[in-house]
Amino acid sequence: MPVATAPSQRARVRRAPSRAAYDRDAIDAILDEALVAHVGFAVDGQPYVIPTLHARAGETVYIHGSAASRTLRTLATSAPACLTVTLLDGIVLARSAFHHSMNYRSVVVLGEARPVDDPAEQLAALEQFTERLVPGRWGEVRPPSAQELKGTRVLAMGLDEASAKVRSGPPVDDEEDYASDAWAGVIPLALTSGAPVPDPRLDAGVAPSPCVQRWEPVARRAAR
Amino acid sequence: MPVATAPSQRARVRRAPSRAAYDRDAIDAILDEALVAHVGFAVDGQPYVIPTLHARAGETVYIHGSAASRTLRTLATSAPACLTVTLLDGIVLARSAFHHSMNYRSVVVLGEARPVDDPAEQLAALEQFTERLVPGRWGEVRPPSAQELKGTRVLAMGLDEASAKVRSGPPVDDEEDYASDAWAGVIPLALTSGAPVPDPRLDAGVAPSPCVQRWEPVARRAAR
Repeated sequence: MPVATAPSQRARVRRAPSRAAYDRDAIDAILDEALVAHVGFAVDGQPYVIPTLHARAGETVYIHGSAASRTLRTLATSAPACLTVTLLDGIVLARSAFHHSMNYRSVVVLGEARPVDDPAEQLAALEQFTERLVPGRWGEVRPPSAQELKGTRVLAMGLDEASAKVRSGPPVDDEEDYASDAWAGVIPLALTSGAPVPDPRLDAGVAPSPCVQRWEPVARRAAR
Repeated sequence: MPVATAPSQRARVRRAPSRAAYDRDAIDAILDEALVAHVGFAVDGQPYVIPTLHARAGETVYIHGSAASRTLRTLATSAPACLTVTLLDGIVLARSAFHHSMNYRSVVVLGEARPVDDPAEQLAALEQFTERLVPGRWGEVRPPSAQELKGTRVLAMGLDEASAKVRSGPPVDDEEDYASDAWAGVIPLALTSGAPVPDPRLDAGVAPSPCVQRWEPVARRAAR
């Protein structure tokens, strides 16, 4: 059942509040399906929005990157941050230009990013990045070296100030426009995967492992 | 030919600068293919990142929304802003966990949003929102009424402080890891469209118009 109450005033969805959801299941499902997040932070008053991978584990969403990255260095100072993911589900074609819209599912997480300094939590988060991307992959590849761990910064954001927003279904037109002879409806959109492309340096005859062969956005979702 | 020089110090790509591009063709192509942008702004020091549609026309990228929206109201005060779009092209599977990556194309636009007050520019921008989404659609639907125009705020950002970042191609592994027997390569990703779903209130027998029938991300690109 959707939770209709925002966890904080600033996490409340302002526009079209009927599309808002604040329950963890809705939020988790969107975060887990999205392959990329957009993280916002400010430097000298200028906002920056940077695409980055994210990985949720329980009540926490992790991001990571080079310890030298400005994004990571800025966020590691407990600067206020915002992490947003958006899934596009369709183009909504209404009978008026005004009511054209998108079907989408998005999550906005507000808060501060906590640097992950505990080596066990860092390694578990890195495993989660690989596993959430391609379940089963972590066991097939070389794990991080001490030097790689040292050069990688992991940050954690709590999900206590998260909100989801969802639009689905057909267009909603003004009543008088339903007499229009224009076609109206939805063009569905989905992120899909193609056949795996082997690295040119891979020995011929090395087949994709099962976790690669079976990868697709929906299977990935089901595997979680 | 890629332009290797950033238009400003703050628009310079910091991480992996070899992936950066600053030429308008590269920037325009990414902006035009992306269906959604993430806009960043700050309220009382808290950054917010909100998904929104965008539409480029020449040197300008437009966003729009309800005149009552906090995002639009904040940006209309010439607050510093950042508009980012990201296209996912593939999951890069390396022989080490560390070198896993994504193939992507992204654009970051820095600057201030200018409120569009000229009615002709506002209407042209709204036409561009519809036409860039589904080329040919504007002529099929009811144009905006005076009341709808009054309730819609259009903002414009210049592209003079824009940068693109692109990763493509196979994984790049540490030399000693190429002896690994793990499969390595890329799982291609693309946004794809399904068969149009008619509005339940549409008269049976009304077929999708040609612009709806032929819609697909790549055709949309080619049609521009």
